[in-house]
Amino acid sequence: MKVIELNRSVTDSNDRDAEALRRELKEKGVLLINLMSSPGSGKTTLLSRTIQDLSTEIRIAVMEADIESAVDAERIEAMGAAAIQIHTGGMCHMDAGMTRKGLEEMGEERAELVFLENVGNLICPAEYDTGAAKDVMILSVPEGDDKPLKYPLMFAKSDVLVITKTDTAPYFNFDFEACKKRVQRLNPRIRIFEVSARTGEGMQAWEEWLKEELAAWKNR
Amino acid sequence: MKVIELNRSVTDSNDRDAEALRRELKEKGVLLINLMSSPGSGKTTLLSRTIQDLSTEIRIAVMEADIESAVDAERIEAMGAAAIQIHTGGMCHMDAGMTRKGLEEMGEERAELVFLENVGNLICPAEYDTGAAKDVMILSVPEGDDKPLKYPLMFAKSDVLVITKTDTAPYFNFDFEACKKRVQRLNPRIRIFEVSARTGEGMQAWEEWLKEELAAWKNR
Repeated sequence: MKVIELNRSVTDSNDRDAEALRRELKEKGVLLINLMSSPGSGKTTLLSRTIQDLSTEIRIAVMEADIESAVDAERIEAMGAAAIQIHTGGMCHMDAGMTRKGLEEMGEERAELVFLENVGNLICPAEYDTGAAKDVMILSVPEGDDKPLKYPLMFAKSDVLVITKTDTAPYFNFDFEACKKRVQRLNPRIRIFEVSARTGEGMQAWEEWLKEELAAWKNR
Repeated sequence: MKVIELNRSVTDSNDRDAEALRRELKEKGVLLINLMSSPGSGKTTLLSRTIQDLSTEIRIAVMEADIESAVDAERIEAMGAAAIQIHTGGMCHMDAGMTRKGLEEMGEERAELVFLENVGNLICPAEYDTGAAKDVMILSVPEGDDKPLKYPLMFAKSDVLVITKTDTAPYFNFDFEACKKRVQRLNPRIRIFEVSARTGEGMQAWEEWLKEELAAWKNR
């Protein structure tokens, strides 16, 4: 288990670094997906299930970014995927320089699909382009359907929203239609998936989307 | 409904500002509680229930800090307590200067117990003393028992941990004992309450603690 200690990148030109990283990954045919959410929204569980379902077809690797601990990377490794743990030195988000360093340490050539599990936070990660091909945010049913009203930037800048823990909906007053309308008002082009990684419901549509994105990324 | 737009305080000496604010609030007999948690952990629901139970005995006011929206302050006002909404101008936490400004706008003399509902975030709010008498963090059962491993500073600096949504425990693999051990390793003196604001279970112990703190704050 590799643990990397990272601090704020030396460069201030994050957007330029992110663009350069994205271009390089395109040339290498590596699809980088930036996963963002609140703490405890089920990012790691979604990833575990996705790896379990897709790892015979696709070489997948995961970079886990956290303030501390390596519990997520250990869970991912237990699923048989390549995983590294990045420690952000107290920082609440990943930027492009940190992402590049993580990819280098990991050896991104080992994978064609790389997930960056960003620090659990709905605010700061939305402000930094990591160089990922796609930004995916996760909202879990227990967090509530009002989150688009309170953290609009995250919803506005994500390419995809995955609503997780849908099997717990009977326990919470989560209004899927109201939530989706709030999200689409901020971001009319966003793709929305509803999944339960526990029961498997909805996983197929999400995984089909990943496969299509990977094929398109390699071909265009 | 008052909505306040705040930006970063002009002063860099947050710790000194926080101490000064705490001293002033002590002289006025106003107990300020800083509530911190992830988005969607149930802060507002806990507050609504607390207000419902205590507002005949104690004059309570609430400052809701969010990036955007006023949904929380509206919910609190509907419970009959004084509430103001603070917008943090994109900032992921409240500092002492922002808290002072919020109190001034609200007119803190209207209340003896003031809750500051900080921005939903387990990272940045832990780094800024707001001037509150007590820091209370909330962890909801659906977030998982591993959060102390991943966000240690928040757990280490809080005076109280309230574990919420305990009625949903049958739905999630939340190990209360493991969680509490992880928290106490970081912070041996922390007080821990387990509550369900929905069923009311555990609310009484939390409310007794608030009453004791208020009495002590006024007398010592």
